[in-house]
Amino acid sequence: MLFLKTFYSSKNPEKKVSQNPRFSDFVDKQTGYTTKNILAAPLMNGKDPLGVVMAINKVGGNEFSKADEDLFTKYITFATVIALQHYTSYMYNVESRRSQVLQWTASKVFEELTDIERQFHKALYTVRTYLLCERYSVGLLDMTKEKEFYDEWPVKLGDVEPYKGPKTPDGREINFYKIIDYLLESKEEIKVIPTPPVDHWALVSGLPTYVAENGFICNMMNVAADDYFTFQKEAVDESGFVIKNVLSLPIVNKKEEIVGVATFFNRKDGKPFDEQDEQITEALTQFLGWSVLNCDTYDKLNRTEWRREIAAEMVIYQTKATPAEVQQILNTKEKFDMNPEDCDQREMYKLLRANIPEAKDVDLLLFSFSDLPVSELDLIKCGIRCFFELGVVEKFKVPAEVLTKWMYTVRKGYRDITYHNWRHGFNVGQTMFCLLQTGRLRKYYSDLDAFAMVAAAFCHDIDHRGTNNLYQTKSTSPLAKLHGSSILERHHLDYSKTLMAEESVNIFQSLQKRQFETVQHLHDVCIIATDLALYFKKRTMFQKIVDATEPMADEKEAIAYVSNNPIRKEIIMAMMMTGCDLSAITKPWEVQSKVALMVAAEFWEQGDLERTVLDQQPIPMMDRNKSDELPKMQCGFIDFVCSFVYKEFSRFHKEITPMFDGLNNNRVHWKELADIYQAKVDAIENERKRLEEEQAKKATGEDGGEGGKSKTCTIF
Amino acid sequence: MLFLKTFYSSKNPEKKVSQNPRFSDFVDKQTGYTTKNILAAPLMNGKDPLGVVMAINKVGGNEFSKADEDLFTKYITFATVIALQHYTSYMYNVESRRSQVLQWTASKVFEELTDIERQFHKALYTVRTYLLCERYSVGLLDMTKEKEFYDEWPVKLGDVEPYKGPKTPDGREINFYKIIDYLLESKEEIKVIPTPPVDHWALVSGLPTYVAENGFICNMMNVAADDYFTFQKEAVDESGFVIKNVLSLPIVNKKEEIVGVATFFNRKDGKPFDEQDEQITEALTQFLGWSVLNCDTYDKLNRTEWRREIAAEMVIYQTKATPAEVQQILNTKEKFDMNPEDCDQREMYKLLRANIPEAKDVDLLLFSFSDLPVSELDLIKCGIRCFFELGVVEKFKVPAEVLTKWMYTVRKGYRDITYHNWRHGFNVGQTMFCLLQTGRLRKYYSDLDAFAMVAAAFCHDIDHRGTNNLYQTKSTSPLAKLHGSSILERHHLDYSKTLMAEESVNIFQSLQKRQFETVQHLHDVCIIATDLALYFKKRTMFQKIVDATEPMADEKEAIAYVSNNPIRKEIIMAMMMTGCDLSAITKPWEVQSKVALMVAAEFWEQGDLERTVLDQQPIPMMDRNKSDELPKMQCGFIDFVCSFVYKEFSRFHKEITPMFDGLNNNRVHWKELADIYQAKVDAIENERKRLEEEQAKKATGEDGGEGGKSKTCTIF
Repeated sequence: MLFLKTFYSSKNPEKKVSQNPRFSDFVDKQTGYTTKNILAAPLMNGKDPLGVVMAINKVGGNEFSKADEDLFTKYITFATVIALQHYTSYMYNVESRRSQVLQWTASKVFEELTDIERQFHKALYTVRTYLLCERYSVGLLDMTKEKEFYDEWPVKLGDVEPYKGPKTPDGREINFYKIIDYLLESKEEIKVIPTPPVDHWALVSGLPTYVAENGFICNMMNVAADDYFTFQKEAVDESGFVIKNVLSLPIVNKKEEIVGVATFFNRKDGKPFDEQDEQITEALTQFLGWSVLNCDTYDKLNRTEWRREIAAEMVIYQTKATPAEVQQILNTKEKFDMNPEDCDQREMYKLLRANIPEAKDVDLLLFSFSDLPVSELDLIKCGIRCFFELGVVEKFKVPAEVLTKWMYTVRKGYRDITYHNWRHGFNVGQTMFCLLQTGRLRKYYSDLDAFAMVAAAFCHDIDHRGTNNLYQTKSTSPLAKLHGSSILERHHLDYSKTLMAEESVNIFQSLQKRQFETVQHLHDVCIIATDLALYFKKRTMFQKIVDATEPMADEKEAIAYVSNNPIRKEIIMAMMMTGCDLSAITKPWEVQSKVALMVAAEFWEQGDLERTVLDQQPIPMMDRNKSDELPKMQCGFIDFVCSFVYKEFSRFHKEITPMFDGLNNNRVHWKELADIYQAKVDAIENERKRLEEEQAKKATGEDGGEGGKSKTCTIF
Repeated sequence: MLFLKTFYSSKNPEKKVSQNPRFSDFVDKQTGYTTKNILAAPLMNGKDPLGVVMAINKVGGNEFSKADEDLFTKYITFATVIALQHYTSYMYNVESRRSQVLQWTASKVFEELTDIERQFHKALYTVRTYLLCERYSVGLLDMTKEKEFYDEWPVKLGDVEPYKGPKTPDGREINFYKIIDYLLESKEEIKVIPTPPVDHWALVSGLPTYVAENGFICNMMNVAADDYFTFQKEAVDESGFVIKNVLSLPIVNKKEEIVGVATFFNRKDGKPFDEQDEQITEALTQFLGWSVLNCDTYDKLNRTEWRREIAAEMVIYQTKATPAEVQQILNTKEKFDMNPEDCDQREMYKLLRANIPEAKDVDLLLFSFSDLPVSELDLIKCGIRCFFELGVVEKFKVPAEVLTKWMYTVRKGYRDITYHNWRHGFNVGQTMFCLLQTGRLRKYYSDLDAFAMVAAAFCHDIDHRGTNNLYQTKSTSPLAKLHGSSILERHHLDYSKTLMAEESVNIFQSLQKRQFETVQHLHDVCIIATDLALYFKKRTMFQKIVDATEPMADEKEAIAYVSNNPIRKEIIMAMMMTGCDLSAITKPWEVQSKVALMVAAEFWEQGDLERTVLDQQPIPMMDRNKSDELPKMQCGFIDFVCSFVYKEFSRFHKEITPMFDGLNNNRVHWKELADIYQAKVDAIENERKRLEEEQAKKATGEDGGEGGKSKTCTIF
């Protein structure tokens, strides 16, 4: 069925035509003409023949003369130039069309990520004018390889005949699930036929199935005369369209699977499709086939996204405080019915406040506050109290139910790990509250700022896994792949924003759009700021602000200096977060000594993981074999990281001095312990040296050596 | 800098050259030749000039004669043909190279989804021979638009000068983060230079920056003579390479952002790059630019996948039984230390069994078992007991800790919804256990089969959301988008497999690979089988098996008939799942009447959602306004769905008859209730009719109408 151009070449002119065995009288019989003699020569393009020039029947003679031959040969040179020009021009046109087809197809394929149907549709539509045909159809093949097990049961039981129809080379049942049909003649018309019947005109010939089965390019140059496929004899549809010739090609993806069949009908000039048409359409279908990667990716991307959405919803479901848990705190059962949302908020607030620990029980305004004697449930209640005491609950119309649910959900978001658990999360929130209120930093901030800052502080380590950023990177966790820097912090931030997106726990639900955006930005600033790696970036900037405000006699001047400049506000805020995050180091010694051990224990656990999972030696801080050096390391941490923070804050606001005092007090304790350990180490070292010297003396005595210097090496 | 071909055409030969204002003596001065007269004519391709032919200085005369002109004109015709052939051939070559470049580039771009660096690298490498240049370099641009807030602080505070360097048209700072350098001369050499210094030879001229800034194509035809850019005068690197001419193009994506700059050095034939080189490289860079969609998609796909992984891990963390919860059941605190995994399993089994309800308390072998008096925690223990009684725990080496953790985790996977909660999940597992043991269906199955079937039954509705498949579809939930059919069932199946993938809760952890695959397949069969939409597909197949085994006198024959055929085993298994799933309908009336209400309540809740969320009228079954019709609907459900299942199972195994009896008993109760309701409806209807007739009579009396027939229409 492939179109073959055959050129017959005859170098020596034949003098007696009818006697020559190469002579065919076919044309003579058709035309009634009598060929007597022929003078013929080929037109060559290098080694490739372009055509043949023939002079037939010498006028005024019985045969062509030598002179005729000479003249003819001269003429051939010129004819070759003309033929070559024609041929080259034609091939230029073909190549030009091919690159246009490729470029336009690419333009559409890369326009957007979409499904195969739309992609093929768009691409073919764009290049339609270059195809020079009257109609085309694209059949899309079902890519399913395996059937559902319950659909296979009847076959396997022998109740149903197994499929015996045609299959693609990779074993799929051939099933065109969709046809895109484009009639380019007169009024253009596109039709998309989903699940076309087998007797649809575009399929009934069996040609697309044949192409899908074998992967061949089929060029039927005269459909009417072809007896392999039975095309309809009359018009194929109501448009009156009649098929004259057909070029059909498989569309094959990079995995060598046939994904569809493209069929082109009736070349525009009425001639059959030729080799060049095959070349152009093959380039097109090859490109389209490859580009199915994009459609497959589109599908994969969608499926991954849906799976992500499903998992995200499950996380929310599993971590959101249940009605029973909310009830536990609100304790509204007696007073209100099942649906507290409908209740009067002021009544709810009263009730809620009645259920949270009193100031006299736990004083949240103290820098020295300790969570240790408070239950985790009571800490949730204390967290709620902070917002009431800030005065933001009523101001920003936070429903009591939502506030409770949010706080409880935040608690549930923290994992039950050694240090970075809910107790730590709570402490950071409480310290933020304390810095604003007791530390009087609030004067620089709006109520909305304060609201966002305390909320962000409570969320700042939510879903922490007890391992640090470096561990995420080294273990190439999905978190590390997703976030380039501040890995965990970005995750905590994402989590806090997920809660804002979930209406039933969104404490910011009553805010206006602009206010809500402010809250989101402040969460960015506050939560990312807890990445200690960024601490050194902001140190100097913070110090400059403290330096600038220190000499100001008038408080108003300092307030204006800070609160009129959003950047200064943010820098102080960021440093406050660090102050909160590290605040355990400022707590009374009996608290700090316990908490420091928890921090250390979590580090050691990471160290264990590094050894077992990553097969690496942990740094001393995370090496439980070096736990004796904890006091020394604490001193170092105080000197190189913490001291600056609390010293500067105390200089900034004298109300914060208790934190610095606490820090210094703990420094004394850690130093004492470090000294005791050092004394032990020194004692052992001294003992070792003493023994060494003794040994040396002994050796000298025995050897009778030279002035106490031994030449032997003492090995222990 | 663009290459311009300019043709000067002169139609009338100029006779006195030096006097002619158009004459330039430039060449004469260069060569020392004296031009006296010129005969010139253009070579035209239609309206486009191809070139000029000039005859200079008539020999044997002072000027060209008319005869010269005539001869010259004749010659021009032939010269035009030759020039045209040369031109067309050249253009054919250009177009051919262009389509080759496009096709090869496409071939690489669609080979795999990858990042921009690798994609550009592969594509350019593939087409390198078509580029006909000695070297090329590709600079990739940083796509970051916004800086991190903390990096902007110093700028906003005025401490650091804002960036004033060149920017891309879309406002990005120009920063080449990577250069791919390919030296095609002599020994080919590819280099990838990450974060190249600004004085790197490929950047130092400023040309790539200039291109990135303006988006212009720059063709520098003679680098040495160009004074706009200061190229290095000596060799650019140790290879001794010297730049002679340069063609530099921006690579622009579909969003019109410049993503990189491609620069080609030194055309192979030593000539400057021409318009056709520009065309080919432009086609290439345009294609590459568009194809960045693939790289962006690759990035997006990865990020989505990482987010999915993060969420999936969070789900597992949040739903996996905690050590405290496991402890609650194992109760090993006194006997063992913190780590029960290390303990002797037989001791652990004993301990576990001691903590689960005794047979006398709750008889799990009864078809009439009711969960209602049992606490949810005890149901977890009962679930564990099933596996012990099946004898699979010790046989398949399921650690007691893992079994406990799995069962508790399954419980936590069920949501606390009205009907499809843990209690339902438990009941289906218990009924499966009962069908195998009490119903004696176990004889067809291996121990491994039984193990998998009971496990699958417990998991079969895990994470159900209280709405059915149709609701998922109508609300276009992510679940519906992900799964084409059996939407929720596929989700429950996925969940059950997630648990198998999590080692600490994988009860199948000790199985061999083949056994594990069997278990997975049986989960597919069992869990998908609970989609009632598939029930009608398997009905007849099941009935045939029952029909075939019924006449078999010898039990062994029946066992062989079923157990030697994996399909029959699966069909019975699938129908068992249906029997388990619907088993509430066979329970004692006091249980069924309560459970039926829970099922109905969940349906009504869905109906409410359909009304509120989807704005649709629910079907009667889900319409709480039609709750009175529940008994009637229950009768219908029994008759059209349930009856077949239990009737056939009773016929298959007489041991299962209690279920069918239970069903029939409930049928009687529901019928009674339906009749009572129907009687009420009838009574109201009769009353309505009576009143109507009375009214009619009255009307007749008043109107004195014709034989009691009123012509007025009575409207209530």
